[in-house]
Amino acid sequence: MSAMNLQVLLASRPKTVVEVGNFNIVETPVPEPKTGEVLVRNHYLSLDPYMRGRMSDAKSYAAPVAIGEVMVGGTVGEVVASNNAKFKTGDKVAGYFGWQLYGISDGTELQIVDDSNVSLSAYLGVLGMPGVTSWVGLLDICAPKSGETVLVTAASGAVGSAVGQLAKIHGARAVGIAGGPEKCRYVVDELGFDACIDYKAGKLWEDLKAATPKGIDCLFENVGGEIFDTLLARMNPFSRIAVCGLISQYNGEPYAMKNIRSVLINRVRMQGFIVFDHLPRWPVALQELREHVACGRIKYRESIAEGLRQAPSAFIGLLQGKNFGKQIVKLI
Amino acid sequence: MSAMNLQVLLASRPKTVVEVGNFNIVETPVPEPKTGEVLVRNHYLSLDPYMRGRMSDAKSYAAPVAIGEVMVGGTVGEVVASNNAKFKTGDKVAGYFGWQLYGISDGTELQIVDDSNVSLSAYLGVLGMPGVTSWVGLLDICAPKSGETVLVTAASGAVGSAVGQLAKIHGARAVGIAGGPEKCRYVVDELGFDACIDYKAGKLWEDLKAATPKGIDCLFENVGGEIFDTLLARMNPFSRIAVCGLISQYNGEPYAMKNIRSVLINRVRMQGFIVFDHLPRWPVALQELREHVACGRIKYRESIAEGLRQAPSAFIGLLQGKNFGKQIVKLI
Repeated sequence: MSAMNLQVLLASRPKTVVEVGNFNIVETPVPEPKTGEVLVRNHYLSLDPYMRGRMSDAKSYAAPVAIGEVMVGGTVGEVVASNNAKFKTGDKVAGYFGWQLYGISDGTELQIVDDSNVSLSAYLGVLGMPGVTSWVGLLDICAPKSGETVLVTAASGAVGSAVGQLAKIHGARAVGIAGGPEKCRYVVDELGFDACIDYKAGKLWEDLKAATPKGIDCLFENVGGEIFDTLLARMNPFSRIAVCGLISQYNGEPYAMKNIRSVLINRVRMQGFIVFDHLPRWPVALQELREHVACGRIKYRESIAEGLRQAPSAFIGLLQGKNFGKQIVKLI
Repeated sequence: MSAMNLQVLLASRPKTVVEVGNFNIVETPVPEPKTGEVLVRNHYLSLDPYMRGRMSDAKSYAAPVAIGEVMVGGTVGEVVASNNAKFKTGDKVAGYFGWQLYGISDGTELQIVDDSNVSLSAYLGVLGMPGVTSWVGLLDICAPKSGETVLVTAASGAVGSAVGQLAKIHGARAVGIAGGPEKCRYVVDELGFDACIDYKAGKLWEDLKAATPKGIDCLFENVGGEIFDTLLARMNPFSRIAVCGLISQYNGEPYAMKNIRSVLINRVRMQGFIVFDHLPRWPVALQELREHVACGRIKYRESIAEGLRQAPSAFIGLLQGKNFGKQIVKLI
């Protein structure tokens, strides 16, 4: 075989912001599957904010990527060689092969997926980790009652867009926060949120009061920092916060939060969560999500970078909020 | 009747710290009970940090005391005249008559208490609102498992001392934070905590690591500010925080918290609570507390100010951490 594997390695840890120089792109031979193993050609790579945490060696919920290792990440692709009875050549599979064209697996953490009705790439987004994250954080942790107000930050993103649509399906009022008028129009006009606040418009508190006349009952927090601090002051008594991500705080010094007092005054329940702690909920979440996607009740949008060599710059753009919808890298 | 009532009124709202000038002490006639009402001569007044919030008109979980009104507060005393069949002269009662010698009640929110085995004043502390606060926050919200580490701030206070002793009874390791070596000795030697950290010693983080070698599983937070921020960085995965009070933040600008990221990284559940939202739990809490107090498993200490005219300065001392144990004002 003359085909070569292409891999993106972590070359160095970011001091503050991520730079393309933190990555190293190398060509390596395509690995050979041993007994019990399968070789997968990846078609799409998912780029997600959590990867910023893995680039750092600060204490976190998962071990960091080692210098010189392939960057971690979710992938979907096709089995091209199999020594494992559970998989055959041509099977479409979702796995965690990271930032590379080929991957080897012994079959654990590898799922056969059906792309006859939906795009294969959907298994990286609304039918994958981001979709289940939305479902667990909204329905298990925030648990909105009908008529309550759900606010979600990064509302046009992979997680946020599903949160708002699920909130509407479950009878809540959905309000998003996104960056710029184009994303906000998409959130309201295409996704069907009740309102969307453009945080770049510079009057977050005024716009927030107008969009949440009855305050916030459920906050699905993806962003952190000054926006989160402002939202805390708008929480209702007995409200719930699912802390899913703090993307604005991944670079450098943490933002100093001034409104924690709201947690006491309003008897707020704030819960940090990681979707991988909730594995028993994945099947029920995915079943509901699949039904909603299949009949068009949940829409999604992808931002596609062409080719693995674009992954570093696409990832940097994601951290800066430049993507519009789920950030994917197309590998074929 | 020549006896006069003495009342402490809210004269003005504190701009930053509370001053004696924020109160006004007046003599007024003893009120006459109407049909269905009882007149109570208060024997003890409870002073508690939550009263600081009622002096302010910032949005909070309870309406502020109006200027010119009697300061709110829990009291215990004796029925001296009754037009209500449920109460007779001589009954000992716990109620919410506020900062005054006499009070009138129609019988709602008035409980007959038995002071044959315990001091009447205990119904303002370990057998009253502070005791139930400890019980609900520790057992319902933090829910420590046997062997876990419970940390409580303001550990020598009315709430904190019961939290640590309940934690020990339920099989957890109890670590306190208090101000000064005398309070810390009391917490360890008399209350039986496993360790106590003197936050005034100036090396909180080092002392915290030494006292919590396995991190913190349950945090019962009474203080807020820099101490709370430091503790956040010591929380274990899947740990719980009961936010009961933020006494250090009641004056002036809020402290800016830098370690909220720990909530996400460690999947912390942080819950603000007010004991009056948990009325159905009061009877079971008080029954357990009464048993522990009766057989000496839970000890308590009181700091007693003599006479209602001392209430303002005693309250200011409480906010500065000068009290040692439950702050009471003796009215007889």
